[in-house]
Amino acid sequence: MKLTVVGAGIGDPELITLKAIRALESADVVLYDALCNEILLEYAPAGAARIFVGKRKGSKTYQQEDINELIVLFARQCGHVVRLKGGDPFVFGRGMEEMQFAQGHGIITEYIPGISSAVAAPGLAGIPVTMRGASRSFWTMTATTDTGVLNPEIMTAANTDATLVILMGLSKIGAIAAAFKHAGKENLPIAVIQNASMPTQKTTFGRIDNIEEKTQNLVVSEAGVIVVGAVADPKQFNIAAFSPVSAQLKPVFPD
Amino acid sequence: MKLTVVGAGIGDPELITLKAIRALESADVVLYDALCNEILLEYAPAGAARIFVGKRKGSKTYQQEDINELIVLFARQCGHVVRLKGGDPFVFGRGMEEMQFAQGHGIITEYIPGISSAVAAPGLAGIPVTMRGASRSFWTMTATTDTGVLNPEIMTAANTDATLVILMGLSKIGAIAAAFKHAGKENLPIAVIQNASMPTQKTTFGRIDNIEEKTQNLVVSEAGVIVVGAVADPKQFNIAAFSPVSAQLKPVFPD
Repeated sequence: MKLTVVGAGIGDPELITLKAIRALESADVVLYDALCNEILLEYAPAGAARIFVGKRKGSKTYQQEDINELIVLFARQCGHVVRLKGGDPFVFGRGMEEMQFAQGHGIITEYIPGISSAVAAPGLAGIPVTMRGASRSFWTMTATTDTGVLNPEIMTAANTDATLVILMGLSKIGAIAAAFKHAGKENLPIAVIQNASMPTQKTTFGRIDNIEEKTQNLVVSEAGVIVVGAVADPKQFNIAAFSPVSAQLKPVFPD
Repeated sequence: MKLTVVGAGIGDPELITLKAIRALESADVVLYDALCNEILLEYAPAGAARIFVGKRKGSKTYQQEDINELIVLFARQCGHVVRLKGGDPFVFGRGMEEMQFAQGHGIITEYIPGISSAVAAPGLAGIPVTMRGASRSFWTMTATTDTGVLNPEIMTAANTDATLVILMGLSKIGAIAAAFKHAGKENLPIAVIQNASMPTQKTTFGRIDNIEEKTQNLVVSEAGVIVVGAVADPKQFNIAAFSPVSAQLKPVFPD
């Protein structure tokens, strides 16, 4: 009986670790989310069950409690449950909640980190979250609290020098910009990265005072990452010298 | 002529991505740092040069300017330079500086993200950087500025609810604790993780008011990560149900 909570990375199927692949290879059951690249399921043995527990139109919607119960049920009945999550399981992934629940039922748990969009999505758009002379720190948060209101930490962060990385925030871009305007930072660079690492990757660069207008026609999706700070100024790097995203549709399988 | 700046992960050689391995496999020259696991160099072709440019006793010390020049020199003379860095190249890794320099000399650049100790080191010690009810955000910084003084952002962070992740900070643990005491947080949990993901991984748990005493006999090394916040309370998880670190000395090579 074992639960391995595994970070699947951010989209490009080659941005998964060897350790995550080894876990998938020994899975009896894989429970996976909407943000995971489904190609990664090919690493699991042919006989392993693959169960989608994310949110998607037309699918059964699982509550967190349902997922917790499924983990325990399958660990007991089948052996090794791999819980595959987009990004890193501990970056807004509820990974620890699932591990605690499993531990409470006598199940051994393991965590395998993944490439998180908090760092990699900006990076693949040419934006380093830290850089000498531009940013000494980065602060990562979601745009809303559990109850759906704007995260009050955004107001606090707007008054610091940290690079702010906001996950799942595109629908709140106006309120985020307002927080920085309130802090007197109308000209601060801000960027929105969507579908990072995939062939559809798209970055919108702007300033606090024009980002709402610039992003008004974007499709709002969970996979959007917002970066605010001097590092988000596209003038700092030569985009022409930055490799285009070359995500393969299929990874080169290691075995 | 190409430079690929590659994240090597945090120690366990299986915490590298497939994409990073592909880059190493096509390297003509690999320039690597002290925090990279040298076993990863085996992925490079037999004929590729492997050059250590980190800081280590008894080794030549390269300045950043020297490394920049080496990148351009080798890209011109040999073709594909892989710059292998511990963790992620954009998390205090100067990856963008090297890319900018190379771009200025007409060299195409690519970034391949890596598993960063900012998230993974706490995670492997059982500490999720975010968790419902305990932390809505995490703020990552180094303990000192370029000039070696305490990072003033630590004082700011001590007055927020963010999980604070401090890299390269063990030698400043007393000053860090003082900042939180000043903010009235004597009882806040704090943990120090060393050698994360390796068989020598060691975590020291404490509170702001006793962490200096608890860590006084630790060997200060660059690979230490400090986490401050409610998530660093070891009572939240069952350590006995958490898999011990099982880093392999050699990765299972994919080819």
